[in-house]
Amino acid sequence: MSDLSLHGVIPYLPTPVTPEGEVDRAALSRLVEHLIGQGVHGFAPLGSTGEFAYLDAAQKETVVRTVVEAVDGRVPVIAGVASTTTRDAVAQAQRWRALGADGILAILEAYFPLTDAGVEAYFTAIADATDAPVTLYTNPSFQRSDLSLPVISRLSHHPNIRYIKDASTNTGRLLSILNRTEGRLGVFAASAHITTAVMLIGGLGWMAGPSCVAPRQSVELYALCKAGKWDAAMDLQRRLWSLNESFARFNLAAAIKAGLRLQGFDCGDPLPPQRSLDAAEIDQLKDALSLIGAM
Amino acid sequence: MSDLSLHGVIPYLPTPVTPEGEVDRAALSRLVEHLIGQGVHGFAPLGSTGEFAYLDAAQKETVVRTVVEAVDGRVPVIAGVASTTTRDAVAQAQRWRALGADGILAILEAYFPLTDAGVEAYFTAIADATDAPVTLYTNPSFQRSDLSLPVISRLSHHPNIRYIKDASTNTGRLLSILNRTEGRLGVFAASAHITTAVMLIGGLGWMAGPSCVAPRQSVELYALCKAGKWDAAMDLQRRLWSLNESFARFNLAAAIKAGLRLQGFDCGDPLPPQRSLDAAEIDQLKDALSLIGAM
Amino acid sequence: MSDLSLHGVIPYLPTPVTPEGEVDRAALSRLVEHLIGQGVHGFAPLGSTGEFAYLDAAQKETVVRTVVEAVDGRVPVIAGVASTTTRDAVAQAQRWRALGADGILAILEAYFPLTDAGVEAYFTAIADATDAPVTLYTNPSFQRSDLSLPVISRLSHHPNIRYIKDASTNTGRLLSILNRTEGRLGVFAASAHITTAVMLIGGLGWMAGPSCVAPRQSVELYALCKAGKWDAAMDLQRRLWSLNESFARFNLAAAIKAGLRLQGFDCGDPLPPQRSLDAAEIDQLKDALSLIGAM
Amino acid sequence: MSDLSLHGVIPYLPTPVTPEGEVDRAALSRLVEHLIGQGVHGFAPLGSTGEFAYLDAAQKETVVRTVVEAVDGRVPVIAGVASTTTRDAVAQAQRWRALGADGILAILEAYFPLTDAGVEAYFTAIADATDAPVTLYTNPSFQRSDLSLPVISRLSHHPNIRYIKDASTNTGRLLSILNRTEGRLGVFAASAHITTAVMLIGGLGWMAGPSCVAPRQSVELYALCKAGKWDAAMDLQRRLWSLNESFARFNLAAAIKAGLRLQGFDCGDPLPPQRSLDAAEIDQLKDALSLIGAM
Repeated sequence: MSDLSLHGVIPYLPTPVTPEGEVDRAALSRLVEHLIGQGVHGFAPLGSTGEFAYLDAAQKETVVRTVVEAVDGRVPVIAGVASTTTRDAVAQAQRWRALGADGILAILEAYFPLTDAGVEAYFTAIADATDAPVTLYTNPSFQRSDLSLPVISRLSHHPNIRYIKDASTNTGRLLSILNRTEGRLGVFAASAHITTAVMLIGGLGWMAGPSCVAPRQSVELYALCKAGKWDAAMDLQRRLWSLNESFARFNLAAAIKAGLRLQGFDCGDPLPPQRSLDAAEIDQLKDALSLIGAM
Repeated sequence: MSDLSLHGVIPYLPTPVTPEGEVDRAALSRLVEHLIGQGVHGFAPLGSTGEFAYLDAAQKETVVRTVVEAVDGRVPVIAGVASTTTRDAVAQAQRWRALGADGILAILEAYFPLTDAGVEAYFTAIADATDAPVTLYTNPSFQRSDLSLPVISRLSHHPNIRYIKDASTNTGRLLSILNRTEGRLGVFAASAHITTAVMLIGGLGWMAGPSCVAPRQSVELYALCKAGKWDAAMDLQRRLWSLNESFARFNLAAAIKAGLRLQGFDCGDPLPPQRSLDAAEIDQLKDALSLIGAM
Repeated sequence: MSDLSLHGVIPYLPTPVTPEGEVDRAALSRLVEHLIGQGVHGFAPLGSTGEFAYLDAAQKETVVRTVVEAVDGRVPVIAGVASTTTRDAVAQAQRWRALGADGILAILEAYFPLTDAGVEAYFTAIADATDAPVTLYTNPSFQRSDLSLPVISRLSHHPNIRYIKDASTNTGRLLSILNRTEGRLGVFAASAHITTAVMLIGGLGWMAGPSCVAPRQSVELYALCKAGKWDAAMDLQRRLWSLNESFARFNLAAAIKAGLRLQGFDCGDPLPPQRSLDAAEIDQLKDALSLIGAM
Repeated sequence: MSDLSLHGVIPYLPTPVTPEGEVDRAALSRLVEHLIGQGVHGFAPLGSTGEFAYLDAAQKETVVRTVVEAVDGRVPVIAGVASTTTRDAVAQAQRWRALGADGILAILEAYFPLTDAGVEAYFTAIADATDAPVTLYTNPSFQRSDLSLPVISRLSHHPNIRYIKDASTNTGRLLSILNRTEGRLGVFAASAHITTAVMLIGGLGWMAGPSCVAPRQSVELYALCKAGKWDAAMDLQRRLWSLNESFARFNLAAAIKAGLRLQGFDCGDPLPPQRSLDAAEIDQLKDALSLIGAM
């Protein structure tokens, strides 16, 4: 069991691509460097925002290798593992670990519905296959399976399963998880939650796409929460919230890539047939970023 | 425009019924007296918990009349208006006001889907028909229509539409409402939200069924939140949460009635074909109540 | 157990209302007379199309009384019973029977979810309360509860439960019902099914709104199916289908009322906050009616 | 534009796998030979039943190569193309064609929601990339995007887009497609439809998993439909339907593999974390197969 202790602002990194559709290693490295300079506490490549569902095996490997090299041990790298089969997921987890990832973000893809036992077996196999801490990732909006509370509770007893990131909009569910797992699982918010509220109830931080375009403000919000300065935190949170609303409204990857381009970090476009934001949407995003001093 | 200022713990009252299916006025009056003694800040009869969807016009009138008389002006009474037709809703609102209700909780029932314009017209007609403050009630789990953010925003400009109670599980939605309505709408939580989190983001309190069986603890939690004692509030909130989980798992009316019976306030059973909790469920509820010292 | 044998084209009658919101008895009687003249095989007032969910108890009674009197025994009248409570449903069934209805169309309304046992108890109570044949009505699009196959199968053993009308879009489900109930339940289609296909698999006919505006064509289609002239039936069915598509796209009551107005049978507007069709929608409906020679 | 004319019974082939998780070429070839002997009219490897969502690129290629070689031109092979990205889908289509596939079954996978324009662009790119006829495949139960009627209508004008297989349960939707595309798209049913009903309304046949375990009966049913012997067809259809019900209830791939094992064609188990049928489920399947003389 690893003694890695995750916390704070862990951006869900986008996957920059060239017009030819190749992973843009230079853009990704530059983005990592920028975000470390802003004080983020870790990185999560190959999450939803990272378009894991649109990349092939070689592209995914390039992403992990690039991020690990660019970070160079300064903060933890939690790499996304996602598959429909146990065999492929285990292979990814072992490969990412061999490439230097510090932890695994475990995602279950499904086509046919699974029983709870199947869901549990999948995550257990990943956790058995590696010595790195595993973060369960549950996103009922986009994934075709979900982790029920009883499954989460059982999985929390695995020594390598240490965290959960929940991308539902149901903040009460996080309190249910915290109550049931009694310290065995640390909880991270996603951008659909009010992160200040998640910190109040005992969360460790957040793994989210919007932190890529508002890293300084995110780190500041985290510090205010940790210091128990809840009124000041809510002042900042209220202004940051319109950014979260934009990400809920738009395609997540398209919004992050549009926002980063506005800030001078061109990461290309989302992979087709996904579309980029149109001019009106970019204007809305620009307004949300201006409001928080992120332009 | 009324100058009534709602806040705090406003229990969603159950509707006690006799074995013959008649409203049990004595049980309802006794419950009201008990809850006032515990310090609640108002009452909301004829909400979901009050089985409004299972009562006929005469039963509803008996409920409002009984609660208004029992309360006798000590705290505000916010009576539920619910219909599929504008005409019936307006008539209910005017009748409840004539009976002495201080405010209206406005609920839209629907069979066929409605456009946003239809939803807006319904609530506007209710607000036009009375001088009492109107609380919009939105419950996407059980109601076949929902209030979109643009509709809520437009309705918030009506001088009589002053509050909203949201029974979704999406706490972030409440922050979106607060940000958009800029002080025009006060926000109340329902039992699917962590009420402490809603207070943190600027909520006024909560209108919820569980407060009927944990009134003292609810009032204490509200006081801690108002005093900004967030750590103490979360200590209490964590223990109270298993009660909310019970209400999410069971039929709401059945759970409240079972809980009150355990506490010596027999309100009868939910109206058939709804069923009462079975023995195992009552045991779970008893545990949740014992945990918070409410047995 | 009644020996009434239902079959054929049984229009779901709209509820004509005056501008003041009262049931327009004259318009309803005139419509009934017209449809009998076109050869329909029965009537179903107070179904979805009849806006049962928007009428109060007195209005419903007026509808049943009016239809029974206008029909005067020439074809069967199957009156809709719909409630959230068993007690009210039983009272409606007994009242409609006393007013002369030949059969009951039984609809379950719900606010909180029900168990299968609750669903079964509700329909059983209705069937126990009357000697008239009961038609189960299941409409998963608009109703908040549904009849599962095991419940349908158990209910089919009640001597008074004789028919089912299914308003899902899943035609295979009807074959499953026919196979499981082995002759105990007759099956009627709704307008979301291809009625010719339902006749092919062994259906008895259809209870549907569109038959109000295409009664002659509906009766002709039924006759072709009964005669086993499947190619001719499909020729007619193909042209009729665009009418069904209109009813799926628009509010059902609004579409029927608009169509009847175009044909000279003014039944008023759907009850607010429902809206009437707009000019463009009326034009689409007019096209669909012209295509089948129903203008 | 190809002049290939698809029709009849086109089994959705399972993908046999060895205990080590490799494609079992021998088992797949043997199954193909058996089904040709039973008179099927074509093959569709890499559909839902073929677990396309659980195979990597090399495994998919092995499947197509094996089926093409085993069939050896006797009937058409329609190979499944499925991806989240346009680029990968185009590459698959070109590769399957180079390997000898006669047609393409085009499936859209999605993670983030797509606009209609994105959906249309994806299928158009596949059709542009190959000279083989393309069958659109729409399965709203398992796929996270769906083809709307307007998109289907626009795509039907592409000279290479010639067929659609619909795996919804909504048979009326097929009639809407036929009416709108006026002969440009041939329609195939899936196992959730009553295939006899789809033939009645003008369908060309069916692409479905259950045909693998009931090939003789399926071919007989198709012949009865083509001959217009509708009563005899329905006699057979009624008995076959319990097989379709089994496939709707169980995991599709698990059910096909269990059924084939019962018939002496061991294709291994579904890929984990999917589970195999348990003993009770296998018994139900055995009963359904016995009922139609397929054991």
